[in-house]
Amino acid sequence: MEHLKPLIKENTDRFINELMDLLRIPSVSADSKYKPDVLRAAEFIRDKFKAAGADSCEVIPTAGHPVVYAEKIIDPSKPTILVYGHYDVQPPDPMDLWHSPPFEPVIKDEKIYARGACDDKGQVYMHIKAFELMMSTNSLPCNVKFMIEGEEEVGSENLGPFVIANKERLKSDVILISDTSIIANDVPSITTGLRGLAYLEVEVTGADHDLHSGTYGGGVANPINVLCKMIAALKDDNNHITIPGFYNDVEVISEEERKAMARAPFSMDAYKKHLGIDEVEGEAGYSTLERTTIRPTLDVNGIWGGYIGEGSKTVLPSKAFAKISMRLVPHQTVDNTVEQFIAYFKSLAPPSVKVEVRPHHGGAPVVTPTDSLAYRAASMAMEKTFGVTPIPARAGGSIPIVALFEKELGLKSLMMGFGLNTDLIHSPNEHYGIFNFLKGIETIPYFYEHFTAISAEK
Amino acid sequence: MEHLKPLIKENTDRFINELMDLLRIPSVSADSKYKPDVLRAAEFIRDKFKAAGADSCEVIPTAGHPVVYAEKIIDPSKPTILVYGHYDVQPPDPMDLWHSPPFEPVIKDEKIYARGACDDKGQVYMHIKAFELMMSTNSLPCNVKFMIEGEEEVGSENLGPFVIANKERLKSDVILISDTSIIANDVPSITTGLRGLAYLEVEVTGADHDLHSGTYGGGVANPINVLCKMIAALKDDNNHITIPGFYNDVEVISEEERKAMARAPFSMDAYKKHLGIDEVEGEAGYSTLERTTIRPTLDVNGIWGGYIGEGSKTVLPSKAFAKISMRLVPHQTVDNTVEQFIAYFKSLAPPSVKVEVRPHHGGAPVVTPTDSLAYRAASMAMEKTFGVTPIPARAGGSIPIVALFEKELGLKSLMMGFGLNTDLIHSPNEHYGIFNFLKGIETIPYFYEHFTAISAEK
Repeated sequence: MEHLKPLIKENTDRFINELMDLLRIPSVSADSKYKPDVLRAAEFIRDKFKAAGADSCEVIPTAGHPVVYAEKIIDPSKPTILVYGHYDVQPPDPMDLWHSPPFEPVIKDEKIYARGACDDKGQVYMHIKAFELMMSTNSLPCNVKFMIEGEEEVGSENLGPFVIANKERLKSDVILISDTSIIANDVPSITTGLRGLAYLEVEVTGADHDLHSGTYGGGVANPINVLCKMIAALKDDNNHITIPGFYNDVEVISEEERKAMARAPFSMDAYKKHLGIDEVEGEAGYSTLERTTIRPTLDVNGIWGGYIGEGSKTVLPSKAFAKISMRLVPHQTVDNTVEQFIAYFKSLAPPSVKVEVRPHHGGAPVVTPTDSLAYRAASMAMEKTFGVTPIPARAGGSIPIVALFEKELGLKSLMMGFGLNTDLIHSPNEHYGIFNFLKGIETIPYFYEHFTAISAEK
Repeated sequence: MEHLKPLIKENTDRFINELMDLLRIPSVSADSKYKPDVLRAAEFIRDKFKAAGADSCEVIPTAGHPVVYAEKIIDPSKPTILVYGHYDVQPPDPMDLWHSPPFEPVIKDEKIYARGACDDKGQVYMHIKAFELMMSTNSLPCNVKFMIEGEEEVGSENLGPFVIANKERLKSDVILISDTSIIANDVPSITTGLRGLAYLEVEVTGADHDLHSGTYGGGVANPINVLCKMIAALKDDNNHITIPGFYNDVEVISEEERKAMARAPFSMDAYKKHLGIDEVEGEAGYSTLERTTIRPTLDVNGIWGGYIGEGSKTVLPSKAFAKISMRLVPHQTVDNTVEQFIAYFKSLAPPSVKVEVRPHHGGAPVVTPTDSLAYRAASMAMEKTFGVTPIPARAGGSIPIVALFEKELGLKSLMMGFGLNTDLIHSPNEHYGIFNFLKGIETIPYFYEHFTAISAEK
C-alpha cells in the first residue's frame, strides 16, 4: 500500500475539507430537536461511500436514527472486513466553555476542533477515504462492508434489532472499529478491552409540590438533601462502591498483568496538568491507570433539583434527579448491576420520600485476544506506519455494541483507533489531530492487506 | 370602622379586579429579564396610592429595583403607622406544575390563583384598599406612611441603604406588615417571631473541563459525587446540623413555652395529606411545629451539575453547584453562621477538588413582644372581625428587613398577615383566599383605630 502515500499527501486538503463539512452537521442523537440533522449526516456519509465506489449504499431506517450501510464485494472467496463506526455525536453543552462554536470546525495547532472531530466522525471518515484510495487505485485486497450507525452516543438501542435482522448481509470475518485511542502519537496501541456501562436515572420526591423553605423547612424531607445522602452512601471512604454484591463478578487481574500495565508510559504530572487538578482521586489500592481501565466505577453524570436560575429562591423542592452510571469490567453484567443498584438505592431511601429508578441503555464489558489474526494484522499495519510495535492496552470507555456483535454475529471486534485521550471527546473543545487523521488513512489499507494475507496463509 | 363593611361588599368586584391587574405584571425580582415588569408593578402601586388620596406618591430608584413611597399626614400630633410590604414576587418555575399560567390570575373555589396572589401583592393591596376606604369616608384616624419595596424576594439588599438615607421621612410609631399567615380562617393569629436566613451558593470544581466518564471515570474526583458527600456531611443521622458552633447561640425555649406551642391546633394527618407524604422528617427530639419555627434548618434550595437534558450523556463534569440556605432562630447571627458554614464546608473538601462559597443575602431572626401597643391593637382588631381572640404564633419564614427596621429606625414591626400556610407561596399554584383578602381590608382600619386610641391613652 506504499503507492497510497503520495495520494494521501496530494488529497490532504480535500479530505480535511470534506470532514469539516461533515462536522458542520449537528448530528446530536440524544436530543430529538436534532433529528433532521442526524438524518442529514447519514445521507452525507452514504453519498461519500457512493462517490468512493461502494455498492448497495443505503440509509436504512430503524425505530430511532438510521444506519448507513455500504459494501464492496470483489471476490466471495476473499475475506470480508466489516467496518463499524458512528456518525452521531454527544450533545455539545456546556456551550459557554467552547473556544469556537462546536459545529463550526476550525483548525488550530494542526488539530481540527469540533464536536465529533475525533468521536467518531473523524475516525469514520478515515475509513471512507482509505476505501476511496484503494478503490481509485484498484488495490482493494478483500471484501468490505460498512455499518455506520447514528445512535452510539445514546446506547445503540436500535442497532441490536438491526444486526439480528441483517445477519446474512453482515456476514464477515472480522469487525474493525476506529473509535478508541492510542497512548501517544509515538506510542501506538491497540485496544484489547473496554469497560461496560450501566446507566440509570433516579428521581426522589418529597412533598407533592414545591414548598416555602421558611414555612416547611426542618419539618419535611428535602429531596435534594436526601438524594445527596443516598448518593454519598454509594461509596465508602476508600472509594469502594458499597452496592452489595457489586464486586462479586469483577475479573481478578493477576499481579503479573498489573506489573505489565504499570510499565505503560504514564506521567502523573502531565496527567494532572492536562486536567488542571492538584490531586487525583480513586479507589484505594489501585493506580490511576488501573482505576480507569480494569476497575469498575460509579459516577453521577448529572444532577438537578430546586431553583437553579440566577439569584436565590427559598424553595424546598418537590423533586430531585440524578443520572448515575457505572463502568463495568469483565465479568460484570449490566442486568445484574442494574438490579443490584436499584435494590440498594431504594433501600437507602427514608420513609419520608418516594424513589423511582429508570434504567437507560447499557453495554457489556469486552476483552479481545491479542493472538487473533486481526490483532496480528493491526499490529503489523501500525508497526509499518508508526515505525514501532503497538502496545495492547485496555480502555476505560465503552462501545456497548461490541458485546452484541460477538453474541449475534459470532465475530470479535478489532479496535484500532487513532485518537488521543486528550482529544476532549464528550467535552467542550473536542478535537482531532491532523496527524492522527492522516495516519489512520495510511494505516487502514495496510490492515486490509495484512488481514487478507494472513487469512490466506491459514 | 363599622361603616366600611357595606362599602367593602359593594366594591368587592372592583377590588379583586384591580388586584388581578397587578397580578398580571410578572414582577420577578430575581431574574433581570423582568426588570421592566418590576418597574411597571411599582408604577401601578404608586398610581393606586395616588388615586386613593395619598400624598408624596413616588417610585424612588435604588441601586436595584425601586421603592414605592406614599403617605398621608393628617395631624402631626397623631400617631403614625408605617406600612411595609413588597410588590416583587418569586420566580414562577417549575412552570409545568401550574394548573393555570402564573401571571394570568384566575378565580377558583373562592381563591385567586397567581404568583404573588398572597405573597405579597394580595396582602399589600388590602392595605391600599383599606386606606382608600378610610380616605373616601374621611375616617383615617392617624397618619400613615407606605414603603412598598421590590426586592424582598432577593434579600432587600437596597432597602437597607434606603431606610438609612430616609430616616426622617420614615419616622413613625410602629411598622405594620402583612406578609405572614394566620393558623386557619377560624383560628386567627399574630406572628410574634420570624426565623432568619443565611443563603449561600457553593461551587465544586474537579478537572478544569468536562471529561469522558469512560476514559477518566474512577481516576479523578467527580465534583457531583464530592458535592453530594459534602452536603450529606452537613447533617447527622438525627438531622442535627454538624457545622461546629452552629447551635451555640440558639435560643433555648422553656419547657412551658414548648407545652404552650403544643396546644396550638395541628393535625398531623391533614399536614401529611396536604403535602402528599407518608412521613415527616426532621430534627430528632422536636415536634413538627417546633422544627419549623423555633429550630434552625439547613436546606439545599437548588443543585445542578453535569448533563441534565433529555437522554443520557456519559460525562464526568468539571463543576457542580448548589444553593444552600439556613433558617436561623434567635439569637443566631447571619455573619457568624455564614462564617461557620464556609469554614466547615471548605474543610469537607478533598484535595482533589476546589471549592468556592459565595454568600447571598441574609436576614436576622426576629421576636416581637406580645405586650406592645401594636400587638394589643392588632389583637383587638382581629377579635372584632374574626370574632375570636388571635393566638400569638411563631412563623418559620423570614422577613429579613424586620431586624434592620429595629436597628435603624428603632421600631418594632407588628406582623398581622392574613394568608394561610397552604396558600402555596413560592410554589406553583400560589393562591389567596377571597375571604382572607376581604378580611384583611376589614381588619386593617380597626388596627388604625385601636392603635390611635391606645396611643392616646398612654
